[in-house]
Amino acid sequence: MSLLVLGTVAFDTIETPYGKADRIIGGAGTYIAWAASHFYNDIKMLSVIGDDFPQAELDALSARGVDMEGVEVREGEKSFFWAGRYHNNMISRDTLVTELNVLETYEPTLPEAYRDVDYLMLGNFAPAVQMQVINQLPKRPKLVVMDTMNFWMDIAMDELKAVLPKVDVLTINDEEARQLSGEHSLVKAARVIREMGPKYLVIKKGEHGALLFHGSDIFFVPGLPLEEVFDPTGAGDSFAGGFIGHLAKTGDFSFANMKRALVYGSVVASYCVEKFGPTKLKEVTPETVKARTEEFLKLMHVSID
Amino acid sequence: MSLLVLGTVAFDTIETPYGKADRIIGGAGTYIAWAASHFYNDIKMLSVIGDDFPQAELDALSARGVDMEGVEVREGEKSFFWAGRYHNNMISRDTLVTELNVLETYEPTLPEAYRDVDYLMLGNFAPAVQMQVINQLPKRPKLVVMDTMNFWMDIAMDELKAVLPKVDVLTINDEEARQLSGEHSLVKAARVIREMGPKYLVIKKGEHGALLFHGSDIFFVPGLPLEEVFDPTGAGDSFAGGFIGHLAKTGDFSFANMKRALVYGSVVASYCVEKFGPTKLKEVTPETVKARTEEFLKLMHVSID
Repeated sequence: MSLLVLGTVAFDTIETPYGKADRIIGGAGTYIAWAASHFYNDIKMLSVIGDDFPQAELDALSARGVDMEGVEVREGEKSFFWAGRYHNNMISRDTLVTELNVLETYEPTLPEAYRDVDYLMLGNFAPAVQMQVINQLPKRPKLVVMDTMNFWMDIAMDELKAVLPKVDVLTINDEEARQLSGEHSLVKAARVIREMGPKYLVIKKGEHGALLFHGSDIFFVPGLPLEEVFDPTGAGDSFAGGFIGHLAKTGDFSFANMKRALVYGSVVASYCVEKFGPTKLKEVTPETVKARTEEFLKLMHVSID
Repeated sequence: MSLLVLGTVAFDTIETPYGKADRIIGGAGTYIAWAASHFYNDIKMLSVIGDDFPQAELDALSARGVDMEGVEVREGEKSFFWAGRYHNNMISRDTLVTELNVLETYEPTLPEAYRDVDYLMLGNFAPAVQMQVINQLPKRPKLVVMDTMNFWMDIAMDELKAVLPKVDVLTINDEEARQLSGEHSLVKAARVIREMGPKYLVIKKGEHGALLFHGSDIFFVPGLPLEEVFDPTGAGDSFAGGFIGHLAKTGDFSFANMKRALVYGSVVASYCVEKFGPTKLKEVTPETVKARTEEFLKLMHVSID
């Protein structure tokens, strides 16, 4: 019944109008695992790090029940490092440094215990690496969710399109949906993208919320208006983690339950952005998840006869 | 029980990536009245036009029950004219021409029959003109809704701030909320703006929907994902018209009913953008309003125990 998470485990240096955080813990895999762990505890992490990564951070995930056997540690090499600066709107950002380091030659090998999983979360990674993971699974998981980004559309569109038919749910942002489909209207974009493979499409719109498309159904969850967005890094990954965490917990892939998963993804993403890095995600409790879920429901609830 | 609408009645030339419409009927008052008329029929229009305005357009509004006595016709003068070109994203736009014409010296005079109104919709206009209308009403209406724009914040902020304490609901877009408040966070902006007067604040976010703030309550209505946005002109005015139309129809200013008004505003706005000018607003029927309202409710509905 495990959830396999492929995602980077890395260092980030982040500058926002509110301050700077130097070489803090980051990476899509880190955010996804922390976020998912609030809903589901049988998680197996697949990633690669150098020998510079703090053991305490790996131990903290282990302590939450995340199996770290699949995190390859390369002696004498350095972990992936990204540095970026957010603009005043906290949406657009400049990448200042990208050091691939261990990622440059990464070819994932699934430990034996990772081969029988029911849920697969392919965090943002080179599409070829995402495909290698799929190809090592002897049976198709019950649910495959994939995240990706414009970077791969720019340099590896063919590999990306080769993975899409193997995916149930794709999560991308609005601009990426437009780039992938060549359509400006998100309704049209969603139709084109779902013809490429995924039956479900989630379009993330940052502070403006997220849309879920399936068949002729559309569901929308707003972004929670926050006093302060401190650091948007990892919000999309946290969203994906909460989303698949709820689906893995319930094993219910109906549209009604996918909608709930969209809300839970938004709940954890709303926490993520309140502090630098995954700090806040580590502090979240079942009570705070419940309280914020109620805030979301109140924000969205209207009764018309 | 009347609804008094102050707003421009004008000509627009609009270029979008889908085509060009030359000197079509426009103006905030036109959009507001058409939108509101789908919910409420005791509407009194207050505006000014030149002798160049087609009588058939005035007659069409009269036929819907809109009292046009307060529309001053200036012989030998020209109606307000605006020309603009929308960018590919259909949000940002360049103003190509603004000819104030009759607006330049407009000082509204309320006909006797306009003095006893229960609902006042101050469409986007110079704040000094909005104030002149308020000052001519012998008793305060039950509900005053005001729309404005960044232009007036740039050149008439003091006059604008003088009107705000006389207003119950202010409708502005997100960038305008930031400009008016000096706060980037919309939660903080909403707090600052409501200290300026209006108990209710509606922040319009275009295709991303709209937020309603009151006390510690927040409600969000999404933009309906559309196949095609043909012409965004008048969407905000149509929203305001649907919003106050529903409130005038029901006479219920509870938060629960304000939320419904937000949905109805969004319903008519979603129709508005599907054709050039107010064309589509004229075609809307009670059946189409009902059908689209259901689409909105479906888009927003989630059930979590």
